[in-house]
Amino acid sequence: MSFITLLGLLAGTLTTISFVPQLLKTWRTKSAKDMSLPMLIYFCLGVFLWLVYGILLQALPIIVANGITLVLALIILGLKLRYD
Amino acid sequence: MSFITLLGLLAGTLTTISFVPQLLKTWRTKSAKDMSLPMLIYFCLGVFLWLVYGILLQALPIIVANGITLVLALIILGLKLRYD
Repeated sequence: MSFITLLGLLAGTLTTISFVPQLLKTWRTKSAKDMSLPMLIYFCLGVFLWLVYGILLQALPIIVANGITLVLALIILGLKLRYD
Repeated sequence: MSFITLLGLLAGTLTTISFVPQLLKTWRTKSAKDMSLPMLIYFCLGVFLWLVYGILLQALPIIVANGITLVLALIILGLKLRYD
């Protein structure tokens, strides 16, 4: 595996993992009013397109990172819609 | 410009633009307690590495999107540290 791919996997691990503490915090506090709804919607749409971009480029880090991020961000969006 | 590059630019525009309503909301309400601090820290670190990854790959959408996202996310992180 090349250095660039490893770097991408590390980058993707960090940006993806970052949504775990957010998900846990939102789940625990049952509050997401400080999070912007348009932010979550645009973000989920964009991450979905990054996933397609990664598939077309056959770039593993982009596919894995955005696939998992999309799931986590959609759950956070669902929690916000539920709790707000 | 290829279809893949256009798709990446659209994806990057969406994920980058998503931070603008978040920044405006945090600025306006002066509250970011529902946002996770570890989330913002891991996210900024990860976006910085995505930027380096994009530079090494010479992938314009990755460079532009992550460069602007990094600036916006760092400002939101700064606002959270100030308001919390």
